[in-house]
Amino acid sequence: MTRIALAGIGKIARDQHVPHIAANPDFELVAAVTGHRPPEGVPGFRTVAEMMRAVPDVQAISICTPPRGRLALVEQAVAHGLDVMIEKPPAATLSEAQAIVRAVAGAGRVLHVTWHSREAAAVEPARAWLAGRNIRRVEVNWKEDVRVWHPGQAWIWEPGIGVFDPGINALSVITRILPRPLLMETAELRFPSNRDAPIAARLSFDSGGVPVAVEFDFDQRGPQSWDIDVETDDGHLQLSMGASKMAVDGVAQDVGDEAEYARLYRRFAECLSTRASDADLTPFAHVADAYLLGRRVEVGPFEE
Amino acid sequence: MTRIALAGIGKIARDQHVPHIAANPDFELVAAVTGHRPPEGVPGFRTVAEMMRAVPDVQAISICTPPRGRLALVEQAVAHGLDVMIEKPPAATLSEAQAIVRAVAGAGRVLHVTWHSREAAAVEPARAWLAGRNIRRVEVNWKEDVRVWHPGQAWIWEPGIGVFDPGINALSVITRILPRPLLMETAELRFPSNRDAPIAARLSFDSGGVPVAVEFDFDQRGPQSWDIDVETDDGHLQLSMGASKMAVDGVAQDVGDEAEYARLYRRFAECLSTRASDADLTPFAHVADAYLLGRRVEVGPFEE
Repeated sequence: MTRIALAGIGKIARDQHVPHIAANPDFELVAAVTGHRPPEGVPGFRTVAEMMRAVPDVQAISICTPPRGRLALVEQAVAHGLDVMIEKPPAATLSEAQAIVRAVAGAGRVLHVTWHSREAAAVEPARAWLAGRNIRRVEVNWKEDVRVWHPGQAWIWEPGIGVFDPGINALSVITRILPRPLLMETAELRFPSNRDAPIAARLSFDSGGVPVAVEFDFDQRGPQSWDIDVETDDGHLQLSMGASKMAVDGVAQDVGDEAEYARLYRRFAECLSTRASDADLTPFAHVADAYLLGRRVEVGPFEE
Repeated sequence: MTRIALAGIGKIARDQHVPHIAANPDFELVAAVTGHRPPEGVPGFRTVAEMMRAVPDVQAISICTPPRGRLALVEQAVAHGLDVMIEKPPAATLSEAQAIVRAVAGAGRVLHVTWHSREAAAVEPARAWLAGRNIRRVEVNWKEDVRVWHPGQAWIWEPGIGVFDPGINALSVITRILPRPLLMETAELRFPSNRDAPIAARLSFDSGGVPVAVEFDFDQRGPQSWDIDVETDDGHLQLSMGASKMAVDGVAQDVGDEAEYARLYRRFAECLSTRASDADLTPFAHVADAYLLGRRVEVGPFEE
């Protein structure tokens, strides 16, 4: 049983982290670091240092604060001997994410950089199914309505975020299921004339000779889609509903329905028991690459 | 004596690599991989495989091709047992640069990711001078006229390049001389209305509590400047002329005048003799971060 604290008590912490920690017998939620209201029945503190004075036997911390400024929080946590789990995206910049990895490793603690979509039920079955097959092409369509999923949220339009907030989930899945690394060839980013982040993006990659076409859209009315299609010499794989469902040649496969965050805390428990970090920054590097290589197209203003 | 080949025979290869290889007794230039004219007296081949059939005792390759597509070249080189040196920037994307590092390490060969400005004469003296001092603030002004230094060159305006072609040199120097890692706080990128890359940039970093203000300008008429100023509790350090000159409180310091590319090949020879790679991607990560976090400002069209 690991005595764990949560830092950053916002929507994702309340909706996912609190209930899944409660449901996992390997963890007990004992404190929160937050400037707002802590979860019910859990004491809240402004800083890691205050928390450790009051609740000195905390062993790990799960960080759900906004990406900016996490390095300082991680440095304080490891200085108090805590192991660390961090919600995606790991930081505001790749350099800060790399500094977080170095800081935790340097302190001899365990770090789990999480990608919740990688824990979707169909991801491991898809990876295994693809492992023995010759892939011809991959198509990703990740299209949702920002007004529905992030109503009135200003942070979503900060530089570096926009449609890459959901898009990085798709990137975290394809970088897990495809057998060869992805190399970005082109990127087009569509910026609303009144925003600092893209509302849509088109990326093309090469993965060991296989073309991978990616479409992200944050302005999708009507049906939403979180789909990945993979055509092979031996059948067509479709992942849908954010990789929670899988079909082969149109036939649904049974992949179970364990929740992403349940698997994510299960994975953190494994990291803690083996004392091995899981800190892959690849999906974030692809986002940075998209901004680096991306040709910018201005589109009409975004109004909620 | 290492029998070395050059790949990519453009201006930088002819101006710097060919003469400095010739002047270094540790290397002998024995072949070139190029679609154009090889250096005088050296056989040229279209591919690494063709070269190795004709000149099988090549031991290393120095790559000066444009950044895009280098991974394939590096994979061919290490498959033939070659050690590798690559001109900055290492690749078109960070993911490709990381793949290059993995490919060379996986093959058990030596990789030198070069940053020529880090070999400027004042860099090591500046690093040593700063090591014992309390730094208060850092200011970087890297301003030159693209019309003078890259006349008529279309590649300089490809996405991801622009003023970061010289700017990455400044980043390579400050990431070497400052004792603490840099965290980007803000970035502003000024894009000409008719180009896909910025002509100017303003970056602000925090380096262990020290503010670092960076100005890049590719539209600098009149005097050009490649200056780094560091204010400490114990004197003011100025690096000028691309870190080839150093002054303390206005007094010039003797740092010698060995050429950057002479030191760069000396460093590669050290890597080869110790069989240790030198493959720091930090300056490139800061460029990707600048695009990720950068607010874009449109400025007037660029005309040569």
